Amino acid sequence: MRFDVLTLFPEIIEGYCSYSIMKRARDAEVITVNAVNPRDFTLDKHKKVDDTPYGGGAGMVLMAQPYVDAYESVERIENSLTIMLSPQGEPLNDSIVNDLANYDQIIMLCGHYEGFDERIREIIKPREISLGDFVLTGGELPALCLIDAVSRKIEGTLGKIASADEDSFSNGLLEYPHYTKPREFRGLRVPEVLLNGNHKDINEFRMQESLNRTKHRRPDLYEKWLLNHNNPT
Amino acid sequence: MRFDVLTLFPEIIEGYCSYSIMKRARDAEVITVNAVNPRDFTLDKHKKVDDTPYGGGAGMVLMAQPYVDAYESVERIENSLTIMLSPQGEPLNDSIVNDLANYDQIIMLCGHYEGFDERIREIIKPREISLGDFVLTGGELPALCLIDAVSRKIEGTLGKIASADEDSFSNGLLEYPHYTKPREFRGLRVPEVLLNGNHKDINEFRMQESLNRTKHRRPDLYEKWLLNHNNPT
Repeated sequence: MRFDVLTLFPEIIEGYCSYSIMKRARDAEVITVNAVNPRDFTLDKHKKVDDTPYGGGAGMVLMAQPYVDAYESVERIENSLTIMLSPQGEPLNDSIVNDLANYDQIIMLCGHYEGFDERIREIIKPREISLGDFVLTGGELPALCLIDAVSRKIEGTLGKIASADEDSFSNGLLEYPHYTKPREFRGLRVPEVLLNGNHKDINEFRMQESLNRTKHRRPDLYEKWLLNHNNPT
Repeated sequence: MRFDVLTLFPEIIEGYCSYSIMKRARDAEVITVNAVNPRDFTLDKHKKVDDTPYGGGAGMVLMAQPYVDAYESVERIENSLTIMLSPQGEPLNDSIVNDLANYDQIIMLCGHYEGFDERIREIIKPREISLGDFVLTGGELPALCLIDAVSRKIEGTLGKIASADEDSFSNGLLEYPHYTKPREFRGLRVPEVLLNGNHKDINEFRMQESLNRTKHRRPDLYEKWLLNHNNPT
């Protein structure tokens, strides 16, 4: 999978992707990550990429020319998708992540400051994705979340692909609790069932814990799970 | 506002907070960001911080001892809140961000790999917050999103505090489109109303665009807005 990120802060993208699992995935050539700076494409003699909004108001607006030209400079491979990270997009979820993992290239446009000149949307026509109903100073963190979440779904990124299949949401429920050594810590003991080696008991315990946790914390997900479970398609 | 982040990758936290608006906010001492590495607290002679899960399964589980000891090492000031970043928490939104901005210290626990030993939750009893219904390789990006979103709400972070008040969600609607120079780009012109200097017309245009966009893209938010608008409390 190839990720191309249009951003005024390529160091942020490069920085995060140089650690931990993202670094391993890059080293193994499971993913490539490439940052492009629209500032390198501005025709303005002062290298400006933003200006004040027509009609007035606070904040600066990202100019169309540097973004559109930078976008058009990106090498396009087959099976490519362009995404704009914006609070106005569809909120990201696990099923969108699964869908995105099927592409071979994802090009991302990161905003900053007040937002994009609307003509960037009109010309590029990106799919718009949001991290959720809150606002950040830029699209860099959402782009990194997308790179991270999508990369996890690609074989070769995690040590064992099984890890991703057991995550929260992959079966529509929150994950069961985990325990590791020691058996007792500050008087708190690992549940006995996890120590007895009976896999049927362990699976039942974990399923019950997943259900309880989802019902208690996320009744919305629990209701959905019940519907699917009682009316399997 | 003071942010303390427990993470196995302090460089990721430090890296992001060294650019752009986060850097400015730190330089102006509006926020301080402090990363603590649980690996520095492990009593294991091989510096291990994770181990295999009791009961079997893929992935590694973060051990209680290094996290609890690292947590207890953090200097606590008054009006402090502890947050665990986890897909099992309440999904972050603008109203939670506003709530968090009222604290003077936020301590965050970032997971990595498969997850936390459940006893970390039992001992620390953090508020759990999720970015949304998708899974990442670690809690670092969610922690950075939280730092970024909360910092934006604190006076002194953005150039003009007015910028945050006009964001998407602050009035329950998505933001209206922005335009900046030039008046025409690749044949696309800025809407005439934004050029005529009549503020009443401009406000009406923007409100109508906000409503249309929200209705079209996020009918869930639009329904909520209608309810509040027709029954103001």
